[in-house]
Amino acid sequence: MSAKGKGYLAIAADKQRQRQEKIPKEWMIDLPRCIEAGILLQAPVNCGILDETECQITSDHDAISLLEKIKTGIWSAERVTIAFCKRAAIAHQLTNCLTEIFFDEAIDRARQLDRERIDSPDGKALRPLHGLPISLKDSFQVAGKDTSTGLACFVNEPAEENSALAALLLDLGAVLYCKTNLPQTIMTGDSDNNVFGRTLNPHNTALTAGGSTGGEGALIALRGSLLGVGTDIGGSIRVPSLCNGIYGVRGSVGLVPHNGVRDLAVPGTSGVFSAAGPMATSIRDCQMFMKVIMESETWRYDHTVVSVPWRQLEVPKKLRIGLVEDNGIYTPSPPVRRGLNQTAQLLRESGNVEIVPVTVPGVKDIYFDLLQYWAPLGTEHYSELFDRTGEPPVPSVNTIKLLSLGSTTLKGFFDLNVRRDEAAKQYLRLFRDNKIDAILMPVAPHTAVPWDKFSNASYTGLWNYLDYPAVVIPVGKVGEQDLADDISHAKYGPQDAELYKLYTGPELYKDAPIALQVVGYRQTDEALLNTASVLDSIINEKK
Amino acid sequence: MSAKGKGYLAIAADKQRQRQEKIPKEWMIDLPRCIEAGILLQAPVNCGILDETECQITSDHDAISLLEKIKTGIWSAERVTIAFCKRAAIAHQLTNCLTEIFFDEAIDRARQLDRERIDSPDGKALRPLHGLPISLKDSFQVAGKDTSTGLACFVNEPAEENSALAALLLDLGAVLYCKTNLPQTIMTGDSDNNVFGRTLNPHNTALTAGGSTGGEGALIALRGSLLGVGTDIGGSIRVPSLCNGIYGVRGSVGLVPHNGVRDLAVPGTSGVFSAAGPMATSIRDCQMFMKVIMESETWRYDHTVVSVPWRQLEVPKKLRIGLVEDNGIYTPSPPVRRGLNQTAQLLRESGNVEIVPVTVPGVKDIYFDLLQYWAPLGTEHYSELFDRTGEPPVPSVNTIKLLSLGSTTLKGFFDLNVRRDEAAKQYLRLFRDNKIDAILMPVAPHTAVPWDKFSNASYTGLWNYLDYPAVVIPVGKVGEQDLADDISHAKYGPQDAELYKLYTGPELYKDAPIALQVVGYRQTDEALLNTASVLDSIINEKK
Repeated sequence: MSAKGKGYLAIAADKQRQRQEKIPKEWMIDLPRCIEAGILLQAPVNCGILDETECQITSDHDAISLLEKIKTGIWSAERVTIAFCKRAAIAHQLTNCLTEIFFDEAIDRARQLDRERIDSPDGKALRPLHGLPISLKDSFQVAGKDTSTGLACFVNEPAEENSALAALLLDLGAVLYCKTNLPQTIMTGDSDNNVFGRTLNPHNTALTAGGSTGGEGALIALRGSLLGVGTDIGGSIRVPSLCNGIYGVRGSVGLVPHNGVRDLAVPGTSGVFSAAGPMATSIRDCQMFMKVIMESETWRYDHTVVSVPWRQLEVPKKLRIGLVEDNGIYTPSPPVRRGLNQTAQLLRESGNVEIVPVTVPGVKDIYFDLLQYWAPLGTEHYSELFDRTGEPPVPSVNTIKLLSLGSTTLKGFFDLNVRRDEAAKQYLRLFRDNKIDAILMPVAPHTAVPWDKFSNASYTGLWNYLDYPAVVIPVGKVGEQDLADDISHAKYGPQDAELYKLYTGPELYKDAPIALQVVGYRQTDEALLNTASVLDSIINEKK
Repeated sequence: MSAKGKGYLAIAADKQRQRQEKIPKEWMIDLPRCIEAGILLQAPVNCGILDETECQITSDHDAISLLEKIKTGIWSAERVTIAFCKRAAIAHQLTNCLTEIFFDEAIDRARQLDRERIDSPDGKALRPLHGLPISLKDSFQVAGKDTSTGLACFVNEPAEENSALAALLLDLGAVLYCKTNLPQTIMTGDSDNNVFGRTLNPHNTALTAGGSTGGEGALIALRGSLLGVGTDIGGSIRVPSLCNGIYGVRGSVGLVPHNGVRDLAVPGTSGVFSAAGPMATSIRDCQMFMKVIMESETWRYDHTVVSVPWRQLEVPKKLRIGLVEDNGIYTPSPPVRRGLNQTAQLLRESGNVEIVPVTVPGVKDIYFDLLQYWAPLGTEHYSELFDRTGEPPVPSVNTIKLLSLGSTTLKGFFDLNVRRDEAAKQYLRLFRDNKIDAILMPVAPHTAVPWDKFSNASYTGLWNYLDYPAVVIPVGKVGEQDLADDISHAKYGPQDAELYKLYTGPELYKDAPIALQVVGYRQTDEALLNTASVLDSIINEKK
């Protein structure tokens, strides 16, 4: 039945037991009590596992301010690392967000870094990420750890070497301590698989934590990590950033080293590429991450990178932002519309932003082609992986109909390129002729939806198709005012109506984060991050 | 027989007559006398068409010093443009290097630019290329002119709009005045086609002018242009730069706008892309061209560009250069070996360069895959274009066996990507672990060869396959000392021996330029141009 002679259930049970053993007994929370107490987001502080300093370390900082504390010696790397290991362990018990746990090695490394600090009392000679705990999506290889990506067939095959990014982050002084959960196939909007199970959304466990980088999303929302790294080939950084109310950046392909990421595509597949990028609790942390990575010599680590140095640009005095209400396929649900309208209003009132309504053309055809780009040879390779241990597809794989995508020919593949070329020409005109610095639009036509209902990525995938950088900014939460309305509001036909009626009002969707994406023109990541920072300061500092 | 109802011979005759009519009668040279006089390179000055100032303008400057003269008002743009139109007309009569001639419009435009100068007496407000005549390979669309690329089926179809680069160069103040010849299919080493005929090598008409940008090569060697633009997907800038003894740069793909170039590939073909780049009489002109282009907002003109700004880098005090003697397939001929050895010697003696012998691994397999990348769907599309007007393949198309390349499948195409990925990893290590700034190696295993004998591009194509930037530097000429030697010197078997014996000694190859290529790591074009400038100053200023 299985290539390994063992079925997936046995493999998963073993793997989960091993994972459980990596959490010290004294860090175990009283889960029923935490759940009973209601709000998961407050559980890490309230569960009694973290001492006061650990609460401070993990609650009151973003990565930039934490790095300052470590570098100036206020807190040791060890103290900080233990705090985040503890909080990650708590977050994991609450949401099932971790896959690989290696707290012991992390704490050892932190101690080593603290010894390095002795030679640099003022912290100035320290490496840029000295002592900062960073979490990684499971698909990043870390030497000695599995890169199972939630597939039973890959369990118990520890990586022989670090992925390029893991190696680079270690050289930059970071502390790696855990990897995080993702969907079977790494292609769905629910971080659920047969090995590790489902990651829950800490804002509302009835809703998806998003995918594919959903483990990061939940972990960072619970501040079990301040800075994590995901990958995005259709929305896999942005969707969980939306669902968990955090910041996330899909940078241009190749800026963040991606080699050594297991992505399950047929080897050599080209056309649309996955991009790695940061997920964090502040926009400036995302910017810092991109800057630090781009200022390091990424080419030494990865033969696939675009190794261009970070450009220090001036922030324009007055921004011109293209406002996209919807993508012409799906009508945003009431809370998303409210989020977009209120944000536009805030920006207009700031006096620093000019809002220009624009539309994104041809998204229906583009999304159709994007599905083909994702799996030009069809999807049998997924089934083949499942069959090795007899595992079935998880529900969300069926939701997106991944296994029924057909294949194309070489000529058909080049025809995709021709159509994309035409689209790229059109989108250049959209940006150039409207003289916009960025586009502001929903990340999806909805917030996080109930489990296994996240059925398409047309709002995010458009930008993977074109390789435009995009940043997710949280702008609010679903509240009492967000009543469901009639499906007659769905403008684009039956499929739209079907999705539209998923939103049933603030009861089921209570506290679901609302977020928007800010999209820049191709390869203008630095300018986009500047723009997004300005927008975020207007949107989130007034609150 | 023909889609146009007209055979290729009639189309070519008409087209050649039209072309001839674009040359003013008073610019016609006494061709038999020039040929009799022997050295074609001296004919432009000796033929009596250019006045003394025109000789000065066209003979004594590179583009940078000429621009200074124009901008400071020493010479008007009109004066300069007329001088280059005349000299291009002469070069054309000597070598058949031009395809489209539009001297009248160029002179009109120059007059217009002279009027603009009135508002900027010191020249400082003028655009970077103000008044500089720039020639373009025929495949660049120029509005109102044919882009026939030497194929009869495309004659008399004037372009409706400028290619991105033509539009950009005009906005930068350049004067476009002619387009230049290339091979049928744009893939061979002989710029010969059924519409315009063959371009001759002005150094030695028994040898090829190279291809595919051979018209530029001959034109610039004769100083009918100081700065031209070619494209290179396997060596098409570098081979004619070698053959004609000029400088040429294949920059990284996407830096110089390429959209609106007719390249005859099946639309949407991806994998290995053509790169546009400068050909010039000095290395600093090449550098200036790349800098000016990269500092302009290329993204506004072309949705396919990599729009990164030029980086001003410091030139390393001591360079470390990897010396590659051969590519493991073909042994360089005696003059090429002499050129490489003498150059290495000069560099060593300079005290500023450390020479490290390195080898380039796996080139045989790489070149095999490159051929497949060039035409993944096979080459029927070429035959289809020929058939439209009944034109036969020119001899050099048969030399490279272009029409017998087979097709592959989508899986086969992705397998090419997998193998290239492995190679890229290896070449990263080659550069990184040897700590080299650049590689110095031959451009081909030979100099320009007799007509229709240029059979492979494995020395140049390696770098297209990997998308590494490469610069050609002329280092000398074949002379009396370059005796042919025994084919036992050919190290790599019968195919090598076959090519090796093409070199028959200094009689047939008299004055053939010898050149080398300097190759940088991926996307480090600025650093490479700095390195190449240092090497060139050592190589060519000692002479």
